[in-house]
Amino acid sequence: MHVEHLGWSRSGALRVLDQTLLPGEERWLEIATLPALVEAIRSLRVRGAPAIGIAAAMGLVAVLRFRARGAAAERAAFLGLVDETAWAIGGSRPTAVNLRWAMERMRRCAERAAGGPDAVLEALRIEAQAIWDEDRAMCQAMAEHGQALMRPGIRVVTHCNTGALATGGIGTALGIILLAAERGLDPEVFVDETRPLWQGSRLTAWELQRAGIRYAVQPDSAAASLMAQGKVDLALVGADRIARNGDLANKLGTFPLAIVARHHGVPFYSVAPRSSFDLACPSGAAIPIEHREAAEVTAPCGVLVAPAASAAFNPAFDVTPAALVTGYVTERGIIHPPFEE
Amino acid sequence: MHVEHLGWSRSGALRVLDQTLLPGEERWLEIATLPALVEAIRSLRVRGAPAIGIAAAMGLVAVLRFRARGAAAERAAFLGLVDETAWAIGGSRPTAVNLRWAMERMRRCAERAAGGPDAVLEALRIEAQAIWDEDRAMCQAMAEHGQALMRPGIRVVTHCNTGALATGGIGTALGIILLAAERGLDPEVFVDETRPLWQGSRLTAWELQRAGIRYAVQPDSAAASLMAQGKVDLALVGADRIARNGDLANKLGTFPLAIVARHHGVPFYSVAPRSSFDLACPSGAAIPIEHREAAEVTAPCGVLVAPAASAAFNPAFDVTPAALVTGYVTERGIIHPPFEE
Repeated sequence: MHVEHLGWSRSGALRVLDQTLLPGEERWLEIATLPALVEAIRSLRVRGAPAIGIAAAMGLVAVLRFRARGAAAERAAFLGLVDETAWAIGGSRPTAVNLRWAMERMRRCAERAAGGPDAVLEALRIEAQAIWDEDRAMCQAMAEHGQALMRPGIRVVTHCNTGALATGGIGTALGIILLAAERGLDPEVFVDETRPLWQGSRLTAWELQRAGIRYAVQPDSAAASLMAQGKVDLALVGADRIARNGDLANKLGTFPLAIVARHHGVPFYSVAPRSSFDLACPSGAAIPIEHREAAEVTAPCGVLVAPAASAAFNPAFDVTPAALVTGYVTERGIIHPPFEE
Repeated sequence: MHVEHLGWSRSGALRVLDQTLLPGEERWLEIATLPALVEAIRSLRVRGAPAIGIAAAMGLVAVLRFRARGAAAERAAFLGLVDETAWAIGGSRPTAVNLRWAMERMRRCAERAAGGPDAVLEALRIEAQAIWDEDRAMCQAMAEHGQALMRPGIRVVTHCNTGALATGGIGTALGIILLAAERGLDPEVFVDETRPLWQGSRLTAWELQRAGIRYAVQPDSAAASLMAQGKVDLALVGADRIARNGDLANKLGTFPLAIVARHHGVPFYSVAPRSSFDLACPSGAAIPIEHREAAEVTAPCGVLVAPAASAAFNPAFDVTPAALVTGYVTERGIIHPPFEE
């Protein structure tokens, strides 16, 4: 059974397992205001492209539920509030397309829904739940399709976290591995630590340990040595946004991993649901890349490891050109660009 | 003027600036015993292939000076002590060839020296000083030859620390940049942080800041993004050991940087003195790679970032095949394999 890290509180707030504190502490947050929701997304308390979309949709409902009382008694005013809140949430991180996709879907749902604020809010709650349920089903479908890449004892390199913690279900790339383990294939996982925020060491290793799967964490620059020694069969990553031509934005470190895999002839697959595909985006050049603060690099764990006032180059994502991607595992099967509806 | 980080104490002990505490604290150690010397080398209080060789030679003298009194009054017994101590020091880290090269040179010096223990010790002191002085001169010569790679405003990626702190002089790869800056070429340096021990953030950035050179620190996986954007003109690294065919062992992360540089057509040079060339070693496959403890990866700065008891893959070095190296900057000029005496 995979980890659940999202939920509703009894009062109707969004419940989120604070991923910044893992693996040391399992602390749940209750979110009922827009600033708290935006902060949780910006600070990566909830992260992973699909999970951000789900949390944003559920969070929108929670924020509206608490803010709506009295503030917008009429339908038109309430729809305005939905719109304003959805835009504010949608702008909280620039790269993940799922965030905007979920907000767009929620806005359309509100417009379609009949009745006053209560009825619209109830429609939105059902829509948010549907986004979550669909993601859970898509994860399962991706994991099933991905079994075509698995074999007994397979040795896989992963980057960042693409498991249950990144989604509403079993995960994307890591979901394939978790399902393979459930089916007795005994995979071995080399976990890129994923600097600067250690989503690999902190989150992926935590999920693997709970699932009883063999793993080792490693500096992000170690994968090349493993591949040169013939110790890696497959590289599996997620995607925060995939352009129509197949270029993909994903956690910083994905692009060099793809180059290194290609150099060694190791297959490199991205695993992502349809909500991560942005067909309006022609290529990677059009994907905005979020740059984060220097302290993530210069003061890991709050300890300064560089001279004070050092500048840092700290893009949260990089762009892997389609030519380096062997295939894309989706809920509909393994596909190849260019992508069409 | 470059940083001095080695010296003799008034009593004849080896003085070493503890590099594990930089950039936060500048603490000097006084080393006069074999366990303290071995610990300082193993724990990377002194590191960098050339600096290890120099510190080992000077440390050998210091250890003998304090241990010799009474322990080995006869020449034969003293030579035995030299031998035993040199072997113990030489085994403290397996990959850097300079360490063994320096110990071999000191042993031959002792055998050649006439007279009793005092005379042999004095010959060794002079030899250790010569190793240091020669390294300083070699650094200067490498930096001069490397100017052929420099041009105004050049943008360079470096990995690990290859500056004054890694040598007995201005440095190897970083020495070229420091000299270029002294000559007004205004280089810009992208400093790989160099996980797991941050020699880039901690040491290279510290040297660059002191020298007033423009720099930014970055996760090791960020260089690929910079190169894709056309923002890197050159990659410069050191070497801990270079085989006869040109394969080189250097700090983990050098090999993927070389692959990524080749992918983008960015020239990739290694800078190392003759003491780093091991002509007895036919290829990279014959270079022993030091594997270090998991905690360096799982508990950076003493903070656990992975589940307790996680395994880690933590090789200190990787091997870059000669085919990926554009050229080797040495004190005799820029050369290409296969290497001969």
